[in-house]
Amino acid sequence: MNKQLTAMQKWLAKQSIDVAFINEPNTIAYLSGYESDPHERILALTVFAGAPPFLFTPELEKEDAINSEWDYDVYGYLDNEDPWALIAEQIHSRSANIKNFAIEKDFLTVRRFEQLQNFFPTVTFSDITPKIQSMKLIKTTEEINKMMEAGKWADRAFEIGFNALKEGISEEEIVAEIEYQLKKEGIKEMSFETMVLTGDNAASPHGTPGKRQVQLNEFVLFDLGVVYNGYTSDATRTIAFGEPSKQAIEIYEIVLRAHNAALAAVKPGISAGELDRIAREIITEAGYGTYFTHRLGHGLGSSVHEFPSIMQDSDFIIQEGMCFSIEPGIYVPNVAGVRIEDCVVVTSDGCEVFTHTPKTYTSI
Amino acid sequence: MNKQLTAMQKWLAKQSIDVAFINEPNTIAYLSGYESDPHERILALTVFAGAPPFLFTPELEKEDAINSEWDYDVYGYLDNEDPWALIAEQIHSRSANIKNFAIEKDFLTVRRFEQLQNFFPTVTFSDITPKIQSMKLIKTTEEINKMMEAGKWADRAFEIGFNALKEGISEEEIVAEIEYQLKKEGIKEMSFETMVLTGDNAASPHGTPGKRQVQLNEFVLFDLGVVYNGYTSDATRTIAFGEPSKQAIEIYEIVLRAHNAALAAVKPGISAGELDRIAREIITEAGYGTYFTHRLGHGLGSSVHEFPSIMQDSDFIIQEGMCFSIEPGIYVPNVAGVRIEDCVVVTSDGCEVFTHTPKTYTSI
Repeated sequence: MNKQLTAMQKWLAKQSIDVAFINEPNTIAYLSGYESDPHERILALTVFAGAPPFLFTPELEKEDAINSEWDYDVYGYLDNEDPWALIAEQIHSRSANIKNFAIEKDFLTVRRFEQLQNFFPTVTFSDITPKIQSMKLIKTTEEINKMMEAGKWADRAFEIGFNALKEGISEEEIVAEIEYQLKKEGIKEMSFETMVLTGDNAASPHGTPGKRQVQLNEFVLFDLGVVYNGYTSDATRTIAFGEPSKQAIEIYEIVLRAHNAALAAVKPGISAGELDRIAREIITEAGYGTYFTHRLGHGLGSSVHEFPSIMQDSDFIIQEGMCFSIEPGIYVPNVAGVRIEDCVVVTSDGCEVFTHTPKTYTSI
Repeated sequence: MNKQLTAMQKWLAKQSIDVAFINEPNTIAYLSGYESDPHERILALTVFAGAPPFLFTPELEKEDAINSEWDYDVYGYLDNEDPWALIAEQIHSRSANIKNFAIEKDFLTVRRFEQLQNFFPTVTFSDITPKIQSMKLIKTTEEINKMMEAGKWADRAFEIGFNALKEGISEEEIVAEIEYQLKKEGIKEMSFETMVLTGDNAASPHGTPGKRQVQLNEFVLFDLGVVYNGYTSDATRTIAFGEPSKQAIEIYEIVLRAHNAALAAVKPGISAGELDRIAREIITEAGYGTYFTHRLGHGLGSSVHEFPSIMQDSDFIIQEGMCFSIEPGIYVPNVAGVRIEDCVVVTSDGCEVFTHTPKTYTSI
């Protein structure tokens, strides 16, 4: 049995929770080794304090689940069957007298919760989200190695993207180049939709790549990540194509200073809010505070956005083995949009980055 | 104001529901024209029976929302603010005395529901999911035109994929070819992860494309779709590369008969269960019933899987303007996996398909 699953069983027993019902695919992969996106169908992992766990899948995925590294029972359901009746039956057969039932409040829909309540009308429901968050928070060496690998692939993606830059190529063509090369090299999935934004488009921090073409003397922002063996990378580089305006380059240097200062401050014991403040003060003192409209960063691991949030006023304490992004940005409409992002793993006295593409101002 | 939004406001007034809180990105796009994937942040559309609606977005997306076709207020929140307090404040300022509050039980998490309950402890919550499902169910001419266009792009994807077929090319390389060409031609998003499965891999109905290479004399299954102007396509073709075994070809012909029989039976007034039965009986009588492990089809529109489910025992009645898939399949390990899928729009006396790539047995 996977270590995390054993740890969860022990924790359930200690908390006197009889059973935990988990339906978030990422968490299921984390605990069971079985990866799948069931779309609107139900994929669930049920873990007991005192009985063997089981996976519950759509019938058409049952064989895949059985053939995966999962060693315990797998039950399937057909599209015309009531999955909740089948799930309840299996839970009852393993544990006759359920009193305390844990669910993922952050990921279970109200509909699904009502279905569970129907079959377990007298139990007490508690939330297992904080426990799962804290389990995922400190990464093992094995997890960190996968994230290092995912980081290398993000560096490769930057390389492909930078090489594709030429006057007249559109944002969506660059995205196509990057993803095509990576897929040919064996990458199945990006962490999120690859973002390549040019000039003014980059001044929208969550813009969408489109038909806009690269023009001389502007910045091009690349925000991308790769999924490698179930673990993600996430990094941003902003590259000059030609010579952007003096103000645009000034903005770049401010963001880079903010990024480097926060990165240098990462170590066990510092708070998330303090890291955000270090970067934000540099940007604010330079007069661009109102243009840094998001938090400094977010946790990452098997999902690209996870606990903790590296944000203002957070007194969450950073510890060794945590992984998160450092991604200050300044977005001034009609002037420039610049973001510089690396994800890090916290070490005993600092941090190590997952991506190594240079961050100093670069013009192509 | 978009027609659907007006219709929802009228419906809320008629039901004496004061306010509806919607957080499913697809439904927000459907009602507001603003498309965005906020990841774990909150994007919400709040619709009132007797006051103007508003959009609530992360601060970093506010400008995009304001610049979209949405004509009403947009409020943003910073990462370190409590979005629920801000949402509650805006709701209270528009409607002082909320008694009935509608939520999407199928898409709202228990956590978010609890946040709303905190700020509205005395209201009655009802479910707006069935209303949204029924609004989306009958497509307008404009929606059907977008789906026809999305269907043409799926045909283009098949063309690219078939042209890429050669001995030794891997499943993931074919996927890369298809998505690269489409992206270069302006397609930003596939409806789901493109599936190209060869030989034995195709015998798993939800398999994942990998390094397996196309071999002579086996089937290659392509299941794919494209998002065009917010609407999806979804189609499957199974193509022979060389000459598969006699039994494999027999399986193909059975699936095709089942597909065609169900397609021919589609018209207003028939039930979803009857359509599934027509296809399933053909497959069962041919001796492969246990290898058809999923429903006949699913609704589609702005999302690739939506209401209704075309499945056994469903007495749901098909009406003109509904859109759904017809996708029987037979998956026999070590023999063959075959699925043939088209999506249709129901007309006054039958149906029209969105994809036109031939379905008769084809060997390349």
